[in-house]
Amino acid sequence: MSRFFSSKYASLTPYVPGEQPGERKYVKLNTNESPFPPSPKALHWAARHTRSQELYSDPEGVELRAELAKTYGVKPEETILVNGSDEVLNFAFMAFCDDAHSAWFPDITYGFYPVFAGLNRVPYTEIPLREDFTLDPADYRDKKGVLFIANPNAPTGILLPPSKIEALLRADPERLVVVDEAYVDFGGLSCVPLVHQYDNLLVVQTFSKSRSLAGARLGFAIGCEALIRDLNTIRYSTNPYNVNSMTLALGLGTLLDPEYMKKNCAEIVRVREQTAGELKALGFTLTDSKANFLFARSDRIGGEALYRRLKEKGILIRHFTLPRIADYNRITVGTLAQMEALLNAIREILEEPT
Amino acid sequence: MSRFFSSKYASLTPYVPGEQPGERKYVKLNTNESPFPPSPKALHWAARHTRSQELYSDPEGVELRAELAKTYGVKPEETILVNGSDEVLNFAFMAFCDDAHSAWFPDITYGFYPVFAGLNRVPYTEIPLREDFTLDPADYRDKKGVLFIANPNAPTGILLPPSKIEALLRADPERLVVVDEAYVDFGGLSCVPLVHQYDNLLVVQTFSKSRSLAGARLGFAIGCEALIRDLNTIRYSTNPYNVNSMTLALGLGTLLDPEYMKKNCAEIVRVREQTAGELKALGFTLTDSKANFLFARSDRIGGEALYRRLKEKGILIRHFTLPRIADYNRITVGTLAQMEALLNAIREILEEPT
Repeated sequence: MSRFFSSKYASLTPYVPGEQPGERKYVKLNTNESPFPPSPKALHWAARHTRSQELYSDPEGVELRAELAKTYGVKPEETILVNGSDEVLNFAFMAFCDDAHSAWFPDITYGFYPVFAGLNRVPYTEIPLREDFTLDPADYRDKKGVLFIANPNAPTGILLPPSKIEALLRADPERLVVVDEAYVDFGGLSCVPLVHQYDNLLVVQTFSKSRSLAGARLGFAIGCEALIRDLNTIRYSTNPYNVNSMTLALGLGTLLDPEYMKKNCAEIVRVREQTAGELKALGFTLTDSKANFLFARSDRIGGEALYRRLKEKGILIRHFTLPRIADYNRITVGTLAQMEALLNAIREILEEPT
Repeated sequence: MSRFFSSKYASLTPYVPGEQPGERKYVKLNTNESPFPPSPKALHWAARHTRSQELYSDPEGVELRAELAKTYGVKPEETILVNGSDEVLNFAFMAFCDDAHSAWFPDITYGFYPVFAGLNRVPYTEIPLREDFTLDPADYRDKKGVLFIANPNAPTGILLPPSKIEALLRADPERLVVVDEAYVDFGGLSCVPLVHQYDNLLVVQTFSKSRSLAGARLGFAIGCEALIRDLNTIRYSTNPYNVNSMTLALGLGTLLDPEYMKKNCAEIVRVREQTAGELKALGFTLTDSKANFLFARSDRIGGEALYRRLKEKGILIRHFTLPRIADYNRITVGTLAQMEALLNAIREILEEPT
């Protein structure tokens, strides 16, 4: 820390992203990326339609937002584009939380929420999930302020039915609910259809997972026009040209090829269910994940030990040190071949003399 | 504004970027973009070296930072990459300004500084430039906190010699000086060589102007390792994957072709000086701009009137309503052909019966 760093951030603990492999080639199952490349049609389309790089990108992303609105059955004015969904999550903490409006989210969820709360110095409370990692809506019913619900949740993959979220929306129209649907395309159910009924709902999604664009950085949020205007007030006060021209074109090209995404998501779901079955056969306990990852523990080996041994064998998965989930690991669903490599490695590790 | 928008931002006025033309084709001289496309070698290099989009971009930007460090004679640990230089300017307001550390900058400078100060709710003071728009270092000598100096300044283009900035650095080692060198490559002099002597100096630059990458969004800052670590604490608390993979590759490719940039900058300087001469011949008063724009006024037509008439004729320039500069316009230096179109249009306008 330099002597110039503001004391207001003295206790700030930044987010730690999943490790990036260096020279060694790993089977990379640690950051929930897609094992499939972006749509070839999208890449081809983007190559022909990217605005010249010497000109600023369109700060309104007019073309992409028009197509996004069509895709999701909303108006362009009900959408905002961001440099990865983390950006709009931070904007939501900035715009809607303050000393009088606490943030509320589960104790086990996306690890960036407490960081955003800390960065913006807003009060927050982590509400423990049930023993089985499901969320009990009753715990949130009387909470004032802003609820942040990752759905499906991470790193558990557990889905809360939109009807339960709707009940929370209805219970208190003066309370904002932010639903983070980064993983919704792998068998989840979206709350987007609720935005026209509830002006206290903001839905956040990303192109990083189901659309294979993690490297291009593109996220978005959908909500009523007034909420989107507020988020744009923040965006125009930080970085108006937040999404670059190549990504705007690639995002649009991707929306123009929905079949490719559907096929990839169906394949991920198929491989997820098959791998879950194999892990159960090996004695693992798993949550009912509706995301592109599995969350698993074994009585036969600790979570950190399994993570370490797999890394030695060239397979990266994600381990969290949070006490409640330290026995677990989060494993991205890759291709069938990657999952077979994983299962073979796990079998070898479980057979090692302890 | 929604009923959820935090009252802490009630008085926030977002930045207004230069207008983006819609359907009509304009000679676009309003946002200081380069009239030249990015280096063809860089585009070719990037097409072959961009990491697969389904994988997250490298949050450390290791390869690009290594080349950037080589280019500027610093260590990679003394550099940070950002999604356009606005991002790191905001980070600097976040990290280094607070109630005890005011921000100080000229009354006429980059219009985003007061927005960043407002967003981060830090106290700031705008210090009037001299009558001729030059900055008097004596006005800053005893100021505590953080100085923000755009050099060359915008929208005036006037350069403060680095020796004057060095005197400010030396005058108070407990005061941070942020030098925003967005336009330094068009005949300015950089403060980067001072970073090894002064740990209270942060230099901000961009690939948007001299390297023709406004649409790709790439900025960077150079300073001592401790300052860069602080900025990374902020970056990892907002958006660790802030620069996308395509831009990382394009930035690196651009650094590998320095001759192209040098040639373009020399041409911009040549066209700038020639256009300045022609405008003076038409009776305009100009500042001594060392940037890729001119800042000009005429006794024969008001600033806003000229802006409007040029727009009707299909030429976009930038007009600011700030009282002290309302008579002026900022005109991006384009190609010689674009400048001839501008001069012809101005001649026509000046000859119109009033």
